[in-house]
Amino acid sequence: MSSLFLRTLREDPADAEVPSHKLLVRAGYVRRVAPGGYSWLPLGLRVLRNIEQVVREEMDAFGAQEIQFPALLPKEPYEATNRWTEYGPNIFRLKDRKGADYLLGPTHEELFALTVKGEYSSYKDYPVTLYQIQTKYRDEARPRAGILRGREFVMKDSYSFDLTDEGLSHSYRQHRDAYIRIFDRLGMEYVIVSATSGAMGGSASEEFLAVAPTGEDTFVRSTGSDYAANVEAVTTPAPPEQSIEDKPQAQVHHTPNTPTIESLVDFLNAAGLGRTFTAADTLKNVLVKLTQPGAKESTLLAIGVPGDREVDFKRLEAAVSPAEVSMLEESDFAKNSFLVKGYIGPGALQANGVRYLVDPRVVRGTAWVTGADKADHHVVDLVQGRDFTPDGVIDVAEVREGDPSPDGQGVLVAARGIEIGHIFQLGRKYADAFALDALGPDSKPIRITMGSYGIGVSRLVAAIAEQSHDDRGLIWPRNVAPFDLHVVVAGKDEALAAGGEKLAGELSAAGLKVLLDDRKASPGVKFADAELIGVPTIVVVGRGLANGVVEVKDRRSGERVEVAVDEVVEHLRTLVRG
Amino acid sequence: MSSLFLRTLREDPADAEVPSHKLLVRAGYVRRVAPGGYSWLPLGLRVLRNIEQVVREEMDAFGAQEIQFPALLPKEPYEATNRWTEYGPNIFRLKDRKGADYLLGPTHEELFALTVKGEYSSYKDYPVTLYQIQTKYRDEARPRAGILRGREFVMKDSYSFDLTDEGLSHSYRQHRDAYIRIFDRLGMEYVIVSATSGAMGGSASEEFLAVAPTGEDTFVRSTGSDYAANVEAVTTPAPPEQSIEDKPQAQVHHTPNTPTIESLVDFLNAAGLGRTFTAADTLKNVLVKLTQPGAKESTLLAIGVPGDREVDFKRLEAAVSPAEVSMLEESDFAKNSFLVKGYIGPGALQANGVRYLVDPRVVRGTAWVTGADKADHHVVDLVQGRDFTPDGVIDVAEVREGDPSPDGQGVLVAARGIEIGHIFQLGRKYADAFALDALGPDSKPIRITMGSYGIGVSRLVAAIAEQSHDDRGLIWPRNVAPFDLHVVVAGKDEALAAGGEKLAGELSAAGLKVLLDDRKASPGVKFADAELIGVPTIVVVGRGLANGVVEVKDRRSGERVEVAVDEVVEHLRTLVRG
Repeated sequence: MSSLFLRTLREDPADAEVPSHKLLVRAGYVRRVAPGGYSWLPLGLRVLRNIEQVVREEMDAFGAQEIQFPALLPKEPYEATNRWTEYGPNIFRLKDRKGADYLLGPTHEELFALTVKGEYSSYKDYPVTLYQIQTKYRDEARPRAGILRGREFVMKDSYSFDLTDEGLSHSYRQHRDAYIRIFDRLGMEYVIVSATSGAMGGSASEEFLAVAPTGEDTFVRSTGSDYAANVEAVTTPAPPEQSIEDKPQAQVHHTPNTPTIESLVDFLNAAGLGRTFTAADTLKNVLVKLTQPGAKESTLLAIGVPGDREVDFKRLEAAVSPAEVSMLEESDFAKNSFLVKGYIGPGALQANGVRYLVDPRVVRGTAWVTGADKADHHVVDLVQGRDFTPDGVIDVAEVREGDPSPDGQGVLVAARGIEIGHIFQLGRKYADAFALDALGPDSKPIRITMGSYGIGVSRLVAAIAEQSHDDRGLIWPRNVAPFDLHVVVAGKDEALAAGGEKLAGELSAAGLKVLLDDRKASPGVKFADAELIGVPTIVVVGRGLANGVVEVKDRRSGERVEVAVDEVVEHLRTLVRG
Repeated sequence: MSSLFLRTLREDPADAEVPSHKLLVRAGYVRRVAPGGYSWLPLGLRVLRNIEQVVREEMDAFGAQEIQFPALLPKEPYEATNRWTEYGPNIFRLKDRKGADYLLGPTHEELFALTVKGEYSSYKDYPVTLYQIQTKYRDEARPRAGILRGREFVMKDSYSFDLTDEGLSHSYRQHRDAYIRIFDRLGMEYVIVSATSGAMGGSASEEFLAVAPTGEDTFVRSTGSDYAANVEAVTTPAPPEQSIEDKPQAQVHHTPNTPTIESLVDFLNAAGLGRTFTAADTLKNVLVKLTQPGAKESTLLAIGVPGDREVDFKRLEAAVSPAEVSMLEESDFAKNSFLVKGYIGPGALQANGVRYLVDPRVVRGTAWVTGADKADHHVVDLVQGRDFTPDGVIDVAEVREGDPSPDGQGVLVAARGIEIGHIFQLGRKYADAFALDALGPDSKPIRITMGSYGIGVSRLVAAIAEQSHDDRGLIWPRNVAPFDLHVVVAGKDEALAAGGEKLAGELSAAGLKVLLDDRKASPGVKFADAELIGVPTIVVVGRGLANGVVEVKDRRSGERVEVAVDEVVEHLRTLVRG
């Protein structure tokens, strides 16, 4: 450490909010160079490379083959798939000296598809899985949290190419298994959640989320099972249908001053109707506009949800993607005078041809209090299947803690996580764009189907730090730690320094990676730095050395044991290598 | 090979001119993605990584510390050193979504200097050497020769930071020694040439050139010693001074129709002056204009060279850098009527205050035929030190094969090379730009002095291929080969396939990297591919297997030996590991 390019900081950086950002900067792992751009100092680079290596080993283990593309890419392939446009301001674009358009690659679906097309032609060539561990670029609107969300970052991205849907499922499963091994080896606490696909378009998709209260992603998990999902992907179980025959007739009531669900429920419960109403008995009809990609005109969509829930716009956006959602403006209400704000009911919607989708809870036979399409009037006991028939179901109401788990076991609780991996059955979107076909045994072309799989390699450094630290500093899992051992010479006399150096030499010779604190600093400063840096095992060469012992301290538990000097190399080798 | 992502090509790519480009594409190491942008396929990536590893080991061995900067860099540091402007169209520039200016880093002097300034403060912290192995970007006007001159490429760049000039010399020497070890381990034929510094500004500078007839750089080497230098850096030895007393008086002659040196020499030799003249006896005075950086006005410079040599403009540019050189226009002659085109002599130059520098050969006591500052007139026996006294010496005449070597041993011959490394004493340019100081023991600031050192890591893949191939394909040196062994199953019967697979398994288990050709192709196709791919040792499992032998073939020499199957693992282990 007397020559290591490392200066630890006593103060948290001013711009840091989350623990990983604070600690990785304070402990000298990374330094900010630009918004969302960080340099890796020696300790940080070691951790990054260790993670890369685990990822590489597990990818290679199932036959994925590593290649590497440029980061600076021509526009044309991304125009062919429309992503040049779709990415909007989220990618970095530039022109070369001749004025040709380039981008800095955010992901490489296009290039992989084109490369496989260039090399392979026969069905006998397939399947193949290729990957790269590469620097990628996204012009994030709000780079934040240090290396958790940067604009330049390292990703492992891989792509599978199969002849059949079953092949794709197999490749997907291989990746899923490899990811589990990777995140297990990295010592992470994570969940695998069903995910919607976002901008990439396709079918089966799961995210690996590192559980962390500072995570940007909200997900829900079951108290009674392994179920976990992104909120966008939660499916609401439909209750059983009810009989219509025993339901009272629908009745319109004059309900003055009831613009909100709460005021409506209060009014009804004071109206002497002989039963008690809750917000869940009301049916709230929310109007939005949908614009299909490329379309100039929007269309109205009405969504009926139980009155005790809001429409979750992230769930709505995911449900209607790629259409875009917008709110109605006053002019829309003016144009559609049948929409009586605050009193919209199924009647006017269906009479005027507005597409009407309802929450899964609104099953046949259920009776609702809802708008009567007339100011200050509501209808009670409007029965689905008798008095109105929705055009379909849309599962976009907010998901709440305590909701039953979709798998029927336990209830949902909310949690937060950091997306560290994403596996995704792309299907034939990119193969279609580039006519990626294999010549079949019958000489007919077979359109290839692709999977896309990512791991945020540099983000993992921060995600692990988020999960593995205490108030004194970082605590690295063994497989990713920058060193195996941190040897602290605790004292200034010559014998200690010589003893520390000799021990460090022996440990290095035994194949262990040793960080030796040979600085002339006080033991207090050295211990504080050792805790901050977070090497999992700290070896203290102190006054016990005169009696032939050194102290071995576990960074995580704080446990200390004294070990005889002549046994300590073997002791530590066993501790580290297991 | 039945599953390796590799398709070899029978034809050279249409855009390829040099052997490395042709062979690396044909053998499936790289693929073109954009002008100057290549993807690394599995074999190529393995070679690239092997080279990186050799470089990393030798850098680490002398205490250099690896870090990593972003490639996407903010403009400001490059503005502080004026390189944002100086690079002109040679760097990629872009704006982020907020309109801030960025560049893709071509080299990282600024960032390294700023980072060291951020971490270090005391003289006790120094010296330090940092490096990175990183993807870099230059918007080359003419990307060419595949990965030899790309626009996105991998470089090792390192920077030393010292308190003193002696420290810088030591750091420079450490790099020089490490580079020698690196290029030796890579099995390269190279020369170390004195170099001028180009755009970087500074003092001592050497280039490592891989000797290759396809190289872009011309250099000269001595037939009688190890001397080698860039043409710009060749120094011309001055001949001994001569006595003035024995020289005849200068005489002006009417020399009609002698606008060229050749016509002048012919005229003189026909004029009956009692001796024979050659072009080397004439003194040609060349006028140029110099513009200092930031200056609006240019100044005249006259250069006197022996009439048998031209001024070499690359040497001139290097000699007067950072001033810019331009030619005189008609208007310049009009403004300076004392300049009589074709007949310019030292007299008028010196009488009119034009700075006059001469070739090192124009020493005191030498007598010259030169212009008499009057149309159709020359002066004979104009003696340096008697009839004119130049303002100084400038060594910019062309260097020719057969010129004496500057070290006095042998003569110079021209050769071509590929720049693979550059070491360079930057001095304090960047430290001055960022006020990079260490606090000295006397509490006074010490301005840091820097060195800058580069190795073209991806270019080395091509440079090695340029040096190491034959008409059948690539021939990799052991340390960089993608595999240690290429096992060819030469035949289709089951026993051979099983035997090949068993042997490959045993060799892998012995720690060797094995490429097994288990394809169903013909032996001829397999042998051709093995020669093309260039793994240094080819193991043929063929019909000899029935008699318990396999054939071991050296790719470079073509030598073949039969080895008993039960000894072949040990034989090959020894062959590969030495």
